[in-house]
Amino acid sequence: MTPTPLKDTSASTPSRNAILLIQCEDRPGLVSRMSSFIFENGGNIVHLDQFTDPLTNRFYMRLEWQYDKFLIRPEEFHAVFTPLARQFGMEYTLHFSDYLPKMAIFVSKLGHCLIDLLSRISDGDIRAQIPLIISNHPDMEKFAGIFGIPYHYLPINRENKAEMEEKELQLLREHQVDLIVLARYMQILSNKMISEYPNQIINIHHSFLPAFVGGKPYHQAYSRGVKLIGATSHFVTEILDEGPIIEQSVIKVSHRDAIEELVLKGKDVEKVTLSRAVRLHLQHRVLVHGNKTVVFE
Amino acid sequence: MTPTPLKDTSASTPSRNAILLIQCEDRPGLVSRMSSFIFENGGNIVHLDQFTDPLTNRFYMRLEWQYDKFLIRPEEFHAVFTPLARQFGMEYTLHFSDYLPKMAIFVSKLGHCLIDLLSRISDGDIRAQIPLIISNHPDMEKFAGIFGIPYHYLPINRENKAEMEEKELQLLREHQVDLIVLARYMQILSNKMISEYPNQIINIHHSFLPAFVGGKPYHQAYSRGVKLIGATSHFVTEILDEGPIIEQSVIKVSHRDAIEELVLKGKDVEKVTLSRAVRLHLQHRVLVHGNKTVVFE
Amino acid sequence: MTPTPLKDTSASTPSRNAILLIQCEDRPGLVSRMSSFIFENGGNIVHLDQFTDPLTNRFYMRLEWQYDKFLIRPEEFHAVFTPLARQFGMEYTLHFSDYLPKMAIFVSKLGHCLIDLLSRISDGDIRAQIPLIISNHPDMEKFAGIFGIPYHYLPINRENKAEMEEKELQLLREHQVDLIVLARYMQILSNKMISEYPNQIINIHHSFLPAFVGGKPYHQAYSRGVKLIGATSHFVTEILDEGPIIEQSVIKVSHRDAIEELVLKGKDVEKVTLSRAVRLHLQHRVLVHGNKTVVFE
Amino acid sequence: MTPTPLKDTSASTPSRNAILLIQCEDRPGLVSRMSSFIFENGGNIVHLDQFTDPLTNRFYMRLEWQYDKFLIRPEEFHAVFTPLARQFGMEYTLHFSDYLPKMAIFVSKLGHCLIDLLSRISDGDIRAQIPLIISNHPDMEKFAGIFGIPYHYLPINRENKAEMEEKELQLLREHQVDLIVLARYMQILSNKMISEYPNQIINIHHSFLPAFVGGKPYHQAYSRGVKLIGATSHFVTEILDEGPIIEQSVIKVSHRDAIEELVLKGKDVEKVTLSRAVRLHLQHRVLVHGNKTVVFE
Repeated sequence: MTPTPLKDTSASTPSRNAILLIQCEDRPGLVSRMSSFIFENGGNIVHLDQFTDPLTNRFYMRLEWQYDKFLIRPEEFHAVFTPLARQFGMEYTLHFSDYLPKMAIFVSKLGHCLIDLLSRISDGDIRAQIPLIISNHPDMEKFAGIFGIPYHYLPINRENKAEMEEKELQLLREHQVDLIVLARYMQILSNKMISEYPNQIINIHHSFLPAFVGGKPYHQAYSRGVKLIGATSHFVTEILDEGPIIEQSVIKVSHRDAIEELVLKGKDVEKVTLSRAVRLHLQHRVLVHGNKTVVFE
Repeated sequence: MTPTPLKDTSASTPSRNAILLIQCEDRPGLVSRMSSFIFENGGNIVHLDQFTDPLTNRFYMRLEWQYDKFLIRPEEFHAVFTPLARQFGMEYTLHFSDYLPKMAIFVSKLGHCLIDLLSRISDGDIRAQIPLIISNHPDMEKFAGIFGIPYHYLPINRENKAEMEEKELQLLREHQVDLIVLARYMQILSNKMISEYPNQIINIHHSFLPAFVGGKPYHQAYSRGVKLIGATSHFVTEILDEGPIIEQSVIKVSHRDAIEELVLKGKDVEKVTLSRAVRLHLQHRVLVHGNKTVVFE
Repeated sequence: MTPTPLKDTSASTPSRNAILLIQCEDRPGLVSRMSSFIFENGGNIVHLDQFTDPLTNRFYMRLEWQYDKFLIRPEEFHAVFTPLARQFGMEYTLHFSDYLPKMAIFVSKLGHCLIDLLSRISDGDIRAQIPLIISNHPDMEKFAGIFGIPYHYLPINRENKAEMEEKELQLLREHQVDLIVLARYMQILSNKMISEYPNQIINIHHSFLPAFVGGKPYHQAYSRGVKLIGATSHFVTEILDEGPIIEQSVIKVSHRDAIEELVLKGKDVEKVTLSRAVRLHLQHRVLVHGNKTVVFE
Repeated sequence: MTPTPLKDTSASTPSRNAILLIQCEDRPGLVSRMSSFIFENGGNIVHLDQFTDPLTNRFYMRLEWQYDKFLIRPEEFHAVFTPLARQFGMEYTLHFSDYLPKMAIFVSKLGHCLIDLLSRISDGDIRAQIPLIISNHPDMEKFAGIFGIPYHYLPINRENKAEMEEKELQLLREHQVDLIVLARYMQILSNKMISEYPNQIINIHHSFLPAFVGGKPYHQAYSRGVKLIGATSHFVTEILDEGPIIEQSVIKVSHRDAIEELVLKGKDVEKVTLSRAVRLHLQHRVLVHGNKTVVFE
């Protein structure tokens, strides 16, 4: 059987949009100044969302506009925009809708999140290319195979952890990966890797954080006797299970649900929660400040 | 016992904001033009949300700004804004956050939606004054009493329907009512009343519309054997149960739920759904076009 | 205005049912033995639910049968059933559907849970009588008034806590209360009171336990940046927020929700969650073992 | 690549349980008689659930017991049980937990439901063998391939519909299929096939039935402006979209969701709803009477 490569769905995008994510201290005139900047340079705004946190007075904005008739070329944008950004003290990132982000998936033994992601990418529901899958187990190679994705089996143990992670980093750099998704990857990443990909690593934790931090959350949920179980998708930071939360969901359970049943029900919540978080991030709808996210849905 | 009037919660609003709701055909430069208009006249935008329907090319916007230092006085706004509105073909409405809207509540025998609304208004969670409650039954008068709200018992039957509704209209006009809420009011309004309050009458229908239009929706749900029941809050138009939907919710049911149990579970969904819709409308977050709503949450 | 006493809804019960709640170690033949015991004594079973926890091998059962033609009189039941119960080592309680339980409600300043409960009792959706409401604040007296319920304002402070609680206990004993509901009562009960009412005190905690134990859970939720907030109804035990959970619910929130908005959205979840838990308990659907509940819905 | 056959997960079942599904007119003594029958023949009941519909006086029961020491051999059960069944006018079916049901999957172009089912079967979360997949399109063959499942591509058009369906029936008979799952199969089955598999064909309809019956339900939902979309899994009967409902779910949508976005969000609900319904049915938890189901969760 010939593998069916994930199709490049970028062709179906009717036109090129630019997305600008901004954050800075709030000041009067920001929205006006930004929307005028786009308009005066020939851009037609198709989406604008903004938010000011009243407690911190911090301003967040997402601007999306049609780029086709925009007067500033992509390679010139930084130079043209810098004075304005400096004036307001903005942090910003610029993205283009026709760029297909490169996403590495890490997985261990359980495949439901991986398969769900690949199925969505195959349908064009999540727009990304997957240059590689990395795993500490061989089990999921067959699913990588049908999509023609290289599968790197790197068995990690206590002795070789540093060495293996160095290999992983080389692979990620080599493929110029934009995003790492931990699709039920049961290894703790080193601070070195985390700091090389700040707010670019998305994990799914199988509990409704901050309840049941750490290992075996379904066992913890079972012994506490909760009536709902959940899943949390978050950016990975150096403190375990403490990174900025992107998306959370729950599902009802009862006394009849043994731990195996909690695991099974939890899978549904995990895969949907992770895929939503990945999609929101790849659509450039998530901004991070400190330990919290602003999600412009 | 002395009745406890609903407190005027407007005092707790720190400052006066203006909210402008706009809709028109989409054209480049709208966001820029509008935000500049506010900024150049001394307004600090605290919330901007916009949406363009790609199918109809219609543009919707909600703009909220601090009015304290705004250079245009409220009574001048219309004159100053008209040329800009005309240029873009805008329909618009202007609202002020310190105005306490006047809301009439219609109720029949079931009080759960009424009590829920009054309890929220009493807590300041919904900001409104209730100049009158109208009912075709006397049962709910006691709840009106504790809040010191006049209760008009107008028993309607086939013979006196036109006459009674005329009385209702007189009362509504007399109190200059901004919004009518049908809190499980089991009478069909005449077209005359509906046309006098376009998109100003909010109803709660006890099903997940468009399923189970018309009477006895829980009986219909029971005989169809559905596994979820719902409630729909919508603006009232001349076609029964066909008005623009503001909010919908559902709750799980099973074969064990007899019709009485569906009614009981449905009450929870009805009251929460209606109260949310009323709150969204009173915060000027709902725009209507044709048979659909745009809700800027 | 004359107060409207809560109606005695027991009259609407068509016939008297008995409900037997049983737990013991699992052994073959338990279901057969129990159902035969009921049948042979002239009872027609209308509901039977059972559960065996595979980890602890503990058996739980709820049996409901029509009592009208049952051969054993209520006052004889204990004597007749004791040998069977002893043989299997059963703990059991017997309840009758036409008994109207006596429920005391404790409340502080926030009334949404209290009003929701009273509204449901008034509608007959929860079957109970309320001989008294106890509060450390005077605010909610007006709502007690319309239902003609005595309101005991007992302001507690550090100095008088023991004395006040003694008064509360006297009131509870005097009224032979079956159940205490803490409807957002912001005082920690003494171990003395808790041990006098084991598994008879139901609290609503305004978070999705075990997340955000203790004070100000919405502040905790806000600073963690969660995307869902919740409420937990549980029996009160000596360890704060650690008692057996009866019911939990959540609601979606976003970065736009300031703490005040979390509080407001949380109220909806709190009142619905508490009322469901109270209703389940009063229908004798909740069994407790250790720190967990079995809920026969 | 060698295909990975779906593992026979029956080996992991610790012991053989029997499941008996019963329905008949309600009469006193049914539960007692049935539980005694099992116990006296050496069976240890591990699950008993029953329900009497008060409107129709119909009795439904699910009995599960350990079969290892049961005195009646499987091949004798029918003969031994018939007199008892006749006495009460019971309809019954008997199932064994170690039998691996044979499930045919029909699919058209959209693969999300198929992939979700195969992924769960592969994980052992749904226990079934898939002797064949039938499709009127070739697209999904690649997914059948990795699991080593024969894929029958039978392109149906107006001219060859009867002939193609005859081929399908031959395939289904040949493989002695127990259950047919329509995993977004966009062809209407003939009455002949439906009557050959009564209550053995499960479909997923992409709306919250009875809203939006028939074709293009997401288009219908879009033009009605609903705020929730749903999916319904039901048994297929001769009247389109009118069969007994097993499971329903919904997801929130907003004015921002164009039809494509509704389709995308709907996929999540469809696949989870269908898989749950299939799992409930395969665990013998679903009884059908007339147009409704009793689901013993």
